[in-house]
Amino acid sequence: MFKEKLSDLSLATPSSFIRAILKVTEGEDIISFAGGLPNPISFPKDELKQSTNRVIEKYGSKVFQYSQTAGLTELREYIAKHLCETQGMTIRHEDIIITTGSQQALDLLGKVLINEGDAVIMEEPGYLGAIQAFKQYRPNLCAIPLENDGMDIDRLEDVLKTQDVKFIYTVPNFQNPSGISYSQEKRSQLLALSRKYNCILVEDDPYGDLKFDGNPYGYISKKDPSGSILLGTFSKTVTPGMRVGFMVILDSELRQRINTAKEAADLHSNIFSQYILWDYLTGNDISKHIAKIRRLYQKQCETMISSMEKYFPENITFTRPEGGMFIWATLPEDIAAMDIFEMSKREKVVFVPGNPFYTDGRNANTMRLNYTNCDVEMIVEGIQTLGEVMQTIFVKH
Amino acid sequence: MFKEKLSDLSLATPSSFIRAILKVTEGEDIISFAGGLPNPISFPKDELKQSTNRVIEKYGSKVFQYSQTAGLTELREYIAKHLCETQGMTIRHEDIIITTGSQQALDLLGKVLINEGDAVIMEEPGYLGAIQAFKQYRPNLCAIPLENDGMDIDRLEDVLKTQDVKFIYTVPNFQNPSGISYSQEKRSQLLALSRKYNCILVEDDPYGDLKFDGNPYGYISKKDPSGSILLGTFSKTVTPGMRVGFMVILDSELRQRINTAKEAADLHSNIFSQYILWDYLTGNDISKHIAKIRRLYQKQCETMISSMEKYFPENITFTRPEGGMFIWATLPEDIAAMDIFEMSKREKVVFVPGNPFYTDGRNANTMRLNYTNCDVEMIVEGIQTLGEVMQTIFVKH
Repeated sequence: MFKEKLSDLSLATPSSFIRAILKVTEGEDIISFAGGLPNPISFPKDELKQSTNRVIEKYGSKVFQYSQTAGLTELREYIAKHLCETQGMTIRHEDIIITTGSQQALDLLGKVLINEGDAVIMEEPGYLGAIQAFKQYRPNLCAIPLENDGMDIDRLEDVLKTQDVKFIYTVPNFQNPSGISYSQEKRSQLLALSRKYNCILVEDDPYGDLKFDGNPYGYISKKDPSGSILLGTFSKTVTPGMRVGFMVILDSELRQRINTAKEAADLHSNIFSQYILWDYLTGNDISKHIAKIRRLYQKQCETMISSMEKYFPENITFTRPEGGMFIWATLPEDIAAMDIFEMSKREKVVFVPGNPFYTDGRNANTMRLNYTNCDVEMIVEGIQTLGEVMQTIFVKH
Repeated sequence: MFKEKLSDLSLATPSSFIRAILKVTEGEDIISFAGGLPNPISFPKDELKQSTNRVIEKYGSKVFQYSQTAGLTELREYIAKHLCETQGMTIRHEDIIITTGSQQALDLLGKVLINEGDAVIMEEPGYLGAIQAFKQYRPNLCAIPLENDGMDIDRLEDVLKTQDVKFIYTVPNFQNPSGISYSQEKRSQLLALSRKYNCILVEDDPYGDLKFDGNPYGYISKKDPSGSILLGTFSKTVTPGMRVGFMVILDSELRQRINTAKEAADLHSNIFSQYILWDYLTGNDISKHIAKIRRLYQKQCETMISSMEKYFPENITFTRPEGGMFIWATLPEDIAAMDIFEMSKREKVVFVPGNPFYTDGRNANTMRLNYTNCDVEMIVEGIQTLGEVMQTIFVKH
C-alpha cells in the first residue's frame, strides 16, 4: 500500500549486505570473519560499571535529562585535549560535535553537503557505511583506486581537475576494507591536492589508535585541520554499543549547519552514555587499555596471515595491515568472491565478498577478512576451511 | 570557506528557536516555562541504577557490542505487549523499530517519504521538531488550523480533495504546543478521511500516558494501525537522556525502508540503554511510577491555570489540558508574543512565543507555557511576573 509513497532518497539507499550476512549467521555455529566487531574482551566492563554508578551518584538527574545538541562539554574538552596532546593539534572543545556513532557523522555530512549530482571522491574499495550514507543524497560518487600506500594520486588529480568536487572521503589508517595505511608521501599529496582544489578533506579514523607497533599516524591534516572535517569514535577502543562518535569542524558556519542537522536528526546523542564515557576516559589509564587491545589484535592478525600463507592457494594476494581490524585478499581475476562465499557458508565459515565496497557494486574478485572477533584457534580453522574451498573452486575453473 | 558548499537540504533546515532560548537561559537564575523538559523528580534514578548493574552482570559484553538496527528484541516485545494490553492493539515485536528518540523517527519519515514539493499535512500550531525535521526535505507543508477538539475537519478535507497528500502528521493527545486533545468525533473523522484519501496517518503520542484522570486515550488508529505509522517514546515517562523512542509500522515494505534509512543514519540506537530500559520496564511497576508523574504534573498544571486566571489580563484566552506538559495562550490580535518575551526575559521569566509553531514562522500573538519543569512556587511567581509584563505592554497599545 505504501510502496508508491517512497521518496527518491529512500529508493537511492542500498541496504547493507554485511548486516544481512550478520543476521543470517546470528547465533549459529559459524566462524565469522564477516563483521567488523571488536573483540568483546576489549570492553572495559567493570570500569564502565563503576563509571555508571559514579555519574548517577555524582550528577543525579542531569545524566537522565535532555541535553545540548553538540554534546557534553566535559567529553568534548577531553577529546580536544587528547587530540592536542597525542597529535599536536590545536583545537578547542567548541570545534567538536558529539555524534550517535560515526555513522551519524557520515549521514550528517551527506545531508549538509551533497546535492543531487555533486561530485564526491571515495576510495575504491571504500567503507560501505559511507557509500550507503552518501548514496542516499544521490551524489556522483567518483571512485579512486586504492593502492598499497593510498589513493592513486594521478587519478585523483584527473578528477579534481575536471570536476567540481564537494569533498574527498578517506580512511587514512588501516582502511576499511583494505587494511592499508597511507604513506607519508601520499598523505602530503592528498592534503596538498585537497587544498589546491578547494575541496573539503573528510578524514575518518576509527582504527587509528589500533596501530600494532609505535605511535599512531593520526589525521593527515592534524597540523592544519581548517580545510578538513575529522571523524572519530569510541566504538573500537571502548564500546560500540553506546554509539558515541565525534566530528571536528573548525569552520563555524559549517559546524553550525551540522549542529542544526543533528538537532533535526535526534536532538542530541544519549547523554547518559556521554557522562559514563567521559568519567571512564578521565578516571582510567586509557592508553594501557588500548595497548591491551593492540596486542590482542596483533596476535590475531599475525595468526590469520600465517594461516593464509599456509592454506591459501599461491595466486591469492593479500594486504598486511599495521593495525586495525581487516585484511583484504585478491583472488585471480576470473574468480568471483561470491562463489567462494556461497560454498564456504555451507562449510560454516563466512567473510564479506568485495562487492559492496565498490560504488558500482561489481561482482568482485576480492574479499574482506576480519580477524578481531575470533580467537586464534578459530582463525586457523576458518582460514584452513576457506583455503580448501578455494582449492575446490579453482580446480573447477 | 565552506559556505558555498552547503546543500539545499541544509539551507532548508531552520534551526530551533527553543534550543536557542534554552541555551541563552542555561544556568541562569531564570524561571523558564520555555522548554519541554520533564520534571527531574520523574526520573527513576535508583531503579535505573539497579537495572544498569543488573544488565551488565547478566548480559556482559552483549550490552556493549554492536547490535541490530531494529533494536533489542526483548524491548520491542515489551512495547508490543504493552500496547496490546493497554490499547487493545494486535501487533507483534516485528512491527516495531527502536529509534534514537522520537525525533529520529520524524527525520526518518521525512527521508523515506518526502520528495521536494510533496504535500504533507500538519496541525497549526504544530510540533516544531516535526516542522524542522520535515522542512529539510522541502515538502509543501499544508497547515490545518487546530481547534479545541482537533484539526478543522472541513479545511482538512478541502486539502485532501485537491492535493495528493503523502501523510498527515498529528499529536492526538495533549498536543505540543496547544495542550488540546482530539475529541472522539474528530478522531473518527480524521481516521476516516486519511483512509478515504489513501494517505498515511502519522500519530505521535509522547504525552499520551500523562493523562491526569482516567485511562489514556491511546492512538486514534489503535484498532487498525495498518494505514498508519505510530510513534512513541520513553522520554516523558522514564528518561529523555537515553534517547529511546519507537515506531510501529505494519507495512513490511515501508518498515524495511525505514530500517535501511536508520542503518545509514546511526547503524542502531544505543543498545546499553535499551537493555537498561527493558530491565527497568519489566522489573518495576511502571504504572505506579507514571501515576506519580501524573499527580505531580496535574498539580503544576492546576497551579499555572489558577495563576493565569488571577494574574493575566482578561482578554487572554488559554487552553485547559487534560494531561501532558503545555498550556497555549492567545493574546489580543494586535499583540506580538515576541514583545512580551523580550520584556519578560529582562524580568527573568521565559516562555516560547508562538512563532516557530507555525509553518510560515509568522509573528504570532500566541505563546506556549510549560508547567512541568518548575515547582509550584516558581509557577505562581513566574505567571504573576508575566501578567505584570502583559499589563505594561497592553497599556502602551
